[in-house]
Amino acid sequence: MSAEPFRIGLLGHGTVGSAFAGLLDERAGEIERVNGRRPVISGVLTRSRGSFEEVLDGADLIVELMGGTEPAREYLLAAMRAGCDVVSANKQLLSQHGEELFDLAREHGVLLRFEAAVAGAVPVVRLLEESLAATPIERIHGIVNGTTNFILSEMARGSTYAQALAEAQRLGYAEADPSDDVSGRDAAAKMAILARLAFGAPVHLEDVPYEGIEHLQSDDMEYARELGLGLKLIGTAERRDGGLSVRVYPAFLYAGHPLSSVSGPFNAVTVESEAITEITMSGPGAGGRQTASAVLGDVVSVMTGGARPPAPPLALRLLEDVPSAFYLHLDVADEPGVLAEVTRVLGEQGVSIKSVVQRGLGERARLVMVTHVVPESSLRAAIALLAQSDFVRSAPRTIRVIEEEFG
Amino acid sequence: MSAEPFRIGLLGHGTVGSAFAGLLDERAGEIERVNGRRPVISGVLTRSRGSFEEVLDGADLIVELMGGTEPAREYLLAAMRAGCDVVSANKQLLSQHGEELFDLAREHGVLLRFEAAVAGAVPVVRLLEESLAATPIERIHGIVNGTTNFILSEMARGSTYAQALAEAQRLGYAEADPSDDVSGRDAAAKMAILARLAFGAPVHLEDVPYEGIEHLQSDDMEYARELGLGLKLIGTAERRDGGLSVRVYPAFLYAGHPLSSVSGPFNAVTVESEAITEITMSGPGAGGRQTASAVLGDVVSVMTGGARPPAPPLALRLLEDVPSAFYLHLDVADEPGVLAEVTRVLGEQGVSIKSVVQRGLGERARLVMVTHVVPESSLRAAIALLAQSDFVRSAPRTIRVIEEEFG
Repeated sequence: MSAEPFRIGLLGHGTVGSAFAGLLDERAGEIERVNGRRPVISGVLTRSRGSFEEVLDGADLIVELMGGTEPAREYLLAAMRAGCDVVSANKQLLSQHGEELFDLAREHGVLLRFEAAVAGAVPVVRLLEESLAATPIERIHGIVNGTTNFILSEMARGSTYAQALAEAQRLGYAEADPSDDVSGRDAAAKMAILARLAFGAPVHLEDVPYEGIEHLQSDDMEYARELGLGLKLIGTAERRDGGLSVRVYPAFLYAGHPLSSVSGPFNAVTVESEAITEITMSGPGAGGRQTASAVLGDVVSVMTGGARPPAPPLALRLLEDVPSAFYLHLDVADEPGVLAEVTRVLGEQGVSIKSVVQRGLGERARLVMVTHVVPESSLRAAIALLAQSDFVRSAPRTIRVIEEEFG
Repeated sequence: MSAEPFRIGLLGHGTVGSAFAGLLDERAGEIERVNGRRPVISGVLTRSRGSFEEVLDGADLIVELMGGTEPAREYLLAAMRAGCDVVSANKQLLSQHGEELFDLAREHGVLLRFEAAVAGAVPVVRLLEESLAATPIERIHGIVNGTTNFILSEMARGSTYAQALAEAQRLGYAEADPSDDVSGRDAAAKMAILARLAFGAPVHLEDVPYEGIEHLQSDDMEYARELGLGLKLIGTAERRDGGLSVRVYPAFLYAGHPLSSVSGPFNAVTVESEAITEITMSGPGAGGRQTASAVLGDVVSVMTGGARPPAPPLALRLLEDVPSAFYLHLDVADEPGVLAEVTRVLGEQGVSIKSVVQRGLGERARLVMVTHVVPESSLRAAIALLAQSDFVRSAPRTIRVIEEEFG
């Protein structure tokens, strides 16, 4: 009397793979009650056992939780060519080979779901693909890397970068080699995927300029507190002048911004659109069980037909020189006329100052400013001139500032 | 060569109805590009023109934006009996006749979508129905009425209740008769719908006890600030002891709670589950264009088959006496021994005190306390005894407190 089970071929059985298998086991009864079919794992491929062909044979769905680009890419392409729907949590693969996967899914009329690839348990892929499918999106700001958000939260409480990183590693939020997280590259991969979803234009990881948090100084965070600002690693994807800008960078946020209260190893995404004003979603950024929950949501969505193959890509020009407000830190000689000279150089490049904190330190002084919104090229030109001046004693430091009017 | 248009019969053409028609018109081209069919409004029923039979005839979907229970209920039932999918933004109808509608949708295998009925543009229905379909939910806390959240935000900045309400009316956030919002009844209707989605158990509006914000005093908010608390109108739906509790009440939140930073006419919902920890979504609570955007999301979801008929209901007992921490405001004689007597009465009922602020005012004093978590019945018994004491000069006031450990 009962319906055929829904057969899942599982690729990968590491932290996320085993958490997924466990969660599926717990929830299979309830899923069957609601949807009429019981999901079962019909085959598992690991590094040491199983063959892909056996796992694919008779599967209704392939779930890829191996990570890395190969052989994950090859397996997903083969599964889709065989007419099999696929679910993946693989951000590297989607940000580097997304169009190839999307094209093949469309060609074969199969489903490709990847909620867990972007923001852990926070269902931002579904928000963009479905809830906001009919809404023209203008901008996304995201905190899409929990490791760096944890480190910055610790630094805001007084830790140095090294102390905060060590604590993140102790708690399992950071890898032994944290470079993919702290360089901003992980966040750039996720922003490439979000930009594709929000704007329909193909965005490859290598198109996304990124800056990390390794070079942030504790005293920048202290000055920022005086200016009422908090520091986050932000990914931005936005329409501008008929083009598209996607980038990752440390940014100061004013206290009223919806992302400014997101602390610890959390992810959050704010989507802005004229029709909806803004919607913010936040939640834990990673963790095997959270990721497994997002994967299982995708599985249920495939079981119920609640998804469609990806739409063909749009053409949108990628922009490079986008305007922003900047925090600017200068280590200068403590002499009369220095502030006047600095503002003259900035002014000649069209950079105007919104607020200044000056503090003497014996024969040197710190000059910390926040500028009004200027094209990045203007700010860079002014910095290059300042760096050559006699009275500037070490390399100027800059961090972008996201103002209320941007939020 | 092109596919048949997707024909929408629209019931109601007020603020939301006309915003929906306008947004559909703007987005029809993009929806057709992605989904292959162009959505068109094939008929409109208003109070003054059209007949329901003509609007239903040949429609692929009925969108109901009339509000009120009748004739909206009768029309939706008739549409589903005719095999037509339906979308509604009608919280009164769904919270009072939800099971009848769900049963009929299931019986006829048609789709019933209602994202806009709960939290404006914040897609919490989809979060619960789809993203978290495979996740056992433990608790939902929601700010689901933007009018009261705006009024409370104004009161937190020093306005009286009357001033804040007048400002909300001036800005169009509150109706001329605000009683449905300020009494908590509107929020109770939305929590009934959310509880059904999260827990699968039928919850009728009349099952949800609610308290509003009309009786809040400005000085409660001042004392609360001293205790590090902010006030929100909160809806809670949670599993407890094998049963279910759903209620709406003003509550103090500690500063770290994800809902504590939600200010102005916004809605936000936090979903807690062991598998995901917690996910919070926030956005504008109402407005014709935001609601229209949520309705259009539902339309696209029906067009793409991204939805299923509702699951049959589960049986869950509704609980009444749930534990909470409480803020307690007593107006007492300023005499020696009063504090000792108050704590004795509370202690005898099992109510223990976490923090106290005492302030003399001539011959009377204010005693403001926050209790540890106690069953509500114990607190009520203690209050009844205190209200009869000689040294208590006016009716004790209580407000629930949501602690970190609850968040």
